[in-house]
Amino acid sequence: MSQDVKDLVIIGAGPSALAAAIYTSREDIKTTMFEKAVVGGVTATIDMIDNYPGFPDGVDGMTLSEQWEKQAKRFGSDIQFGEVTKIEIDGKEKVVTVDGKEVRAKAVLIASGRRYGKVGAPGEDEYFGKGVHYCATCDGAFYFGKKLAVVGGGNSAIQEAIFLTRFATHIDLIVRSYVKASAVLKRELGNMVKDGKITVHEATTIDSINGDGAHVVSLSLDENGKKSTLELDGVFVFVGMKPNTEFLNNSNIEITDEGYIRTDEHMMTSLDGVFASGDVRHGATKQIASAAGEGVTAAIAIREYLHRY
Amino acid sequence: MSQDVKDLVIIGAGPSALAAAIYTSREDIKTTMFEKAVVGGVTATIDMIDNYPGFPDGVDGMTLSEQWEKQAKRFGSDIQFGEVTKIEIDGKEKVVTVDGKEVRAKAVLIASGRRYGKVGAPGEDEYFGKGVHYCATCDGAFYFGKKLAVVGGGNSAIQEAIFLTRFATHIDLIVRSYVKASAVLKRELGNMVKDGKITVHEATTIDSINGDGAHVVSLSLDENGKKSTLELDGVFVFVGMKPNTEFLNNSNIEITDEGYIRTDEHMMTSLDGVFASGDVRHGATKQIASAAGEGVTAAIAIREYLHRY
Repeated sequence: MSQDVKDLVIIGAGPSALAAAIYTSREDIKTTMFEKAVVGGVTATIDMIDNYPGFPDGVDGMTLSEQWEKQAKRFGSDIQFGEVTKIEIDGKEKVVTVDGKEVRAKAVLIASGRRYGKVGAPGEDEYFGKGVHYCATCDGAFYFGKKLAVVGGGNSAIQEAIFLTRFATHIDLIVRSYVKASAVLKRELGNMVKDGKITVHEATTIDSINGDGAHVVSLSLDENGKKSTLELDGVFVFVGMKPNTEFLNNSNIEITDEGYIRTDEHMMTSLDGVFASGDVRHGATKQIASAAGEGVTAAIAIREYLHRY
Repeated sequence: MSQDVKDLVIIGAGPSALAAAIYTSREDIKTTMFEKAVVGGVTATIDMIDNYPGFPDGVDGMTLSEQWEKQAKRFGSDIQFGEVTKIEIDGKEKVVTVDGKEVRAKAVLIASGRRYGKVGAPGEDEYFGKGVHYCATCDGAFYFGKKLAVVGGGNSAIQEAIFLTRFATHIDLIVRSYVKASAVLKRELGNMVKDGKITVHEATTIDSINGDGAHVVSLSLDENGKKSTLELDGVFVFVGMKPNTEFLNNSNIEITDEGYIRTDEHMMTSLDGVFASGDVRHGATKQIASAAGEGVTAAIAIREYLHRY
């Protein structure tokens, strides 16, 4: 138990984690990040990011992630790979279990992000970012004047399909069972269908997402048993995002029914000295710049917390 | 009155304004910014920005501002120069007075930022960013192992002086009248003085900030009538920042006693359809990345607002 105690452990190494680490390390707060998959998180897997302020011609997610990582390391941040499975409190100290081993810290920032719900069809991973997308705000604008499909039947799928009509000439909405959206959204969807902007396919599953090697060109559908091929330029999947918070299930950190972490305006969770920022936080806008901004806001609050510690 | 109505008018063209404009323009929301001084705002005047995530070796403020501007313009944002003096409501429309002329918009984002309170001494403007600084979080880390002065006697000056001791070997605190900080801060300051880390000069004014052409080298002081020269590497000025909100004095937008704009978590002010983000907002952390992140959050909320309009 006479282990050394880190100033700050950050769970995750996506934009929010790295932005926070740039700040804390630069102020000599000893910072260690634990990442279970890839530095940059979901951002690292995005082909083209058009709307992160500062890169006028866009930047690919891997490059941007490498830049953040380099910047955080330049100030002394430590990035380690490992999966966090538990957070506990021991007096004032926070005890984080990483790959079965205990790590102690004065403060913790949870920036573990979200993961996309997937269709689970062949071609989905291969064409990710090349016609397969999971964020309309991020990638919709690439499809001005093109044909799209949207997958999903819940509120967010309907909302995003309506949103995407401002870019796409036509959208096919692929729903496994039936549309389960709010009355308002259903009415709006109805208007779009009447105008010929959206076609709804209920009781329809995707057999495969097909491409020409470089980009998606069509979907193979099973519409209530009837097989068909739908030609298009891209497909947006909204079958639910999942916050990476399963490891908090037995903690005292307050999460919403959907699994997002509640914080106050200083990014502090219900547990003193444990902060959360970015996509994992309830109320976050799920945009890279906002996630980074929240990471910085958290870093300032963590500085204050450690000052009082 | 049959003037055309813009979708969105943004007041200011600093990081928060430009980040918002990148998002709104990209979604075909017709966006016009009005800037009274320089695109990039205070950021444009900063010599070296070390902590904006994505630029591992740092970036100068002018370059970063130009990148943001290019990105916003690429998506069709309109930037105009002009001073906003009034915001009024006419039915659902917002009427913004710019250089005496009325501009109508469906939504308004106030991102007019803050300005630094100045010492008013010769050399202050000449050496801005070259030894004269107004933000410890931004520039403190450039002074590892160096000698600094901090100007100001209020809570923020004392807090920043204490913060800067983690970089500087010694700090001279220059106070025009006497230290007016909270008891806790005064106690901490007392400990720092005892440890020889901070020396307090009350009833002291700065006659001039002196440099060698490239960088600050000393201050000429008037300590209760006694003239002296203080050699050092840099000076941080905290004599109060002022939010640029004087033009809101006769509006119905709720501001704090210090002049900052109150918003809800969606960046909406007390006036429906009028939003605020960045340094001008009450509760903002006054960091570039946070200001940009808040601009994006505001853009998402503005999109929703216009959708319901």
